[in-house]
Amino acid sequence: MTEEKRPVTVLGLGDMGSALAGALLAAGHPVTVWNRTATKAAPLVAKGAVAAETPAAAIAANELVIMCLLEDRSVRAVLGAAEEALPGKVVVNLTNGTPRQARELEEWVSARGASFLDGGIMAIPPMIGGPGSFVFYSGSREVFDAHRAAFDVFGESLHVGEDPGFAALHDLALLSGMYGMNVGVLQAFALVRSAGISAVEFAPLLNRWLTSMSGFIERSAEQIDSGEYGKDVVSNLGMQTAAFGNFPRAGADQGVSFELLAPLQALMERGVAEGHGAEELISLIELLKK
Amino acid sequence: MTEEKRPVTVLGLGDMGSALAGALLAAGHPVTVWNRTATKAAPLVAKGAVAAETPAAAIAANELVIMCLLEDRSVRAVLGAAEEALPGKVVVNLTNGTPRQARELEEWVSARGASFLDGGIMAIPPMIGGPGSFVFYSGSREVFDAHRAAFDVFGESLHVGEDPGFAALHDLALLSGMYGMNVGVLQAFALVRSAGISAVEFAPLLNRWLTSMSGFIERSAEQIDSGEYGKDVVSNLGMQTAAFGNFPRAGADQGVSFELLAPLQALMERGVAEGHGAEELISLIELLKK
Ligand SMILES: NC(=O)c1ccc[n+]([C@@H]2O[C@H](COP(=O)([O-])OP(=O)(O)OC[C@H]3O[C@@H](n4cnc5c(N)ncnc54)[C@H](OP(=O)(O)O)[C@@H]3O)[C@@H](O)[C@H]2O)c1
Ligand SMILES: NC(=O)c1ccc[n+]([C@@H]2O[C@H](COP(=O)([O-])OP(=O)(O)OC[C@H]3O[C@@H](n4cnc5c(N)ncnc54)[C@H](OP(=O)(O)O)[C@@H]3O)[C@@H](O)[C@H]2O)c1
Repeated sequence: MTEEKRPVTVLGLGDMGSALAGALLAAGHPVTVWNRTATKAAPLVAKGAVAAETPAAAIAANELVIMCLLEDRSVRAVLGAAEEALPGKVVVNLTNGTPRQARELEEWVSARGASFLDGGIMAIPPMIGGPGSFVFYSGSREVFDAHRAAFDVFGESLHVGEDPGFAALHDLALLSGMYGMNVGVLQAFALVRSAGISAVEFAPLLNRWLTSMSGFIERSAEQIDSGEYGKDVVSNLGMQTAAFGNFPRAGADQGVSFELLAPLQALMERGVAEGHGAEELISLIELLKK
Repeated sequence: MTEEKRPVTVLGLGDMGSALAGALLAAGHPVTVWNRTATKAAPLVAKGAVAAETPAAAIAANELVIMCLLEDRSVRAVLGAAEEALPGKVVVNLTNGTPRQARELEEWVSARGASFLDGGIMAIPPMIGGPGSFVFYSGSREVFDAHRAAFDVFGESLHVGEDPGFAALHDLALLSGMYGMNVGVLQAFALVRSAGISAVEFAPLLNRWLTSMSGFIERSAEQIDSGEYGKDVVSNLGMQTAAFGNFPRAGADQGVSFELLAPLQALMERGVAEGHGAEELISLIELLKK
């Protein structure tokens, strides 16, 4: 017995939108697509998608409308040109944005008679529909539950709050974690490369080290929640700050810029100056408010 | 049949030096210790260590001398005051430093009739002697092999080159990877905390996401070695740069500083301006030379 799959509209066929539409098609959903540059629809049409000529036509085609465009501005532009098609629709915005943008868009969409969910995709396009992919959603839990079967095609669906801004908040938090990791990976490879060491040879060591250090995430979380950074310290900030000067020193010798880690060094020095030298480094979170 | 364990001297009993001396004692090595602040020797003496009154006396006690002090300056100060004890010794410096510092120290120590190895400890003190801990060594392979049994007490011993600077190079590369991760973890927790979300509740998501993204390390390594950043792109730099503005925007709304990621944003913008918008982000490594 086959279940009937709901038809879905996907607006935006960049790398990510194409992956979303492709996964829906592979899962048996009828899919209508639209993209500003129309040629990007061709590979999906070849797999059974219907290409709409305008955003309004694409939205008119189905109740469930998934958007994956460059940023908030493009979402506003596309929806603004298709207002008349919105009443009764369920708009799910999987475009990267801020909590405030999500809340404001929710108001705008609701005022036009449509339901709204915001989302944050925690995967790169090749992971969509495979293991490891997960997506945050926020906004009405009822709307989420009603359309969840389609969402689950992309990966694990996590509803993180009725506040439509919460998916973006979770998304940006995890992305900032990833960009920090990117900083470290760029810096590590830049340094070994300056000594003629192959990145491919070095990669397993880097993976092993980051994995072995990831235990500090849980430990740091407890320290943050308790506000207690000075108990059973194993890597004091003073020592770490003294050692940190070795990065720019080695960078100067090896011809590698350490600009990406400069603000962390400044923050560490500020932490020591303000009396946190005997605490763990994660205490610096208290200095990140503004 | 019990093997006879070589006696070892440990100079420096901070968090790490104490962990090293403790692990040697636990493994059955006779251990002589010295620390500038003498009281820190007491817990080790209680476990069987002999406390020496001066660095020279500590060095005189055993052939193998392991140093773990704050930084290069303290190593120089301690060795400089104990020159007469050096001939015939094997000095192993596990203090964090630069490749250049290691090479210069090797020259200085060799000129005084001692052998020298430099090392970089890839563990935090509670991990010493347990699974997951590893230590880089560089300098004479012959000297390394002769003393390896003692080194293996700390964790896996990896000899990474005859050039005494190579352990520090590997160490600094991995540490920069870790500090990047620290930047991300600080930023992620700061953002969720601004919305009243507990760090302990959020930590498993962060761990899951960083683990799921670590696959990009291997992929990036191949791109770096080949110099080919524009093939089969899944997250183009232009898109990432457009989304990046959401960090400072959300930060302003939530009262969270994004200063730690500001240089990455500037580098991404430079990358786009210089024509790399359609490539993967890791291509920015080409802009980290100086
Ligand atoms: N790729 C990833 O790894 C990834 C992961 C998670 C989340 N995301 C998010 O997913 C979204 C899309 O990313 P992507 O990788 O698919 O980016 P992309 O490949 O660069 O595609 C951008 C899409 O936005 C469209 N667009 C841009 N400006 C527009 C405008 N003014 N009006 C209408 N359409 C416009 C583009 O249309 P044209 O084809 O006409 O240019 C294209 O469809 C972004 O918000 C991104 O942050 C991406
Ligand atoms: N803790 C870690 O997570 C970790 C991990 C890997 C590598 N390391 C490296 O291991 C080394 C030691 O770190 P740690 O955590 O043990 O630091 P720590 O707890 O702050 O201890 C610093 C040690 O250096 C000594 N010292 C400082 N200045 C000195 C001077 N001028 N003369 C003589 N001794 C001096 C201190 O003596 P006093 O007791 O008299 O102050 C103390 O023994 C550092 O290079 C660090 O980068 C540490």
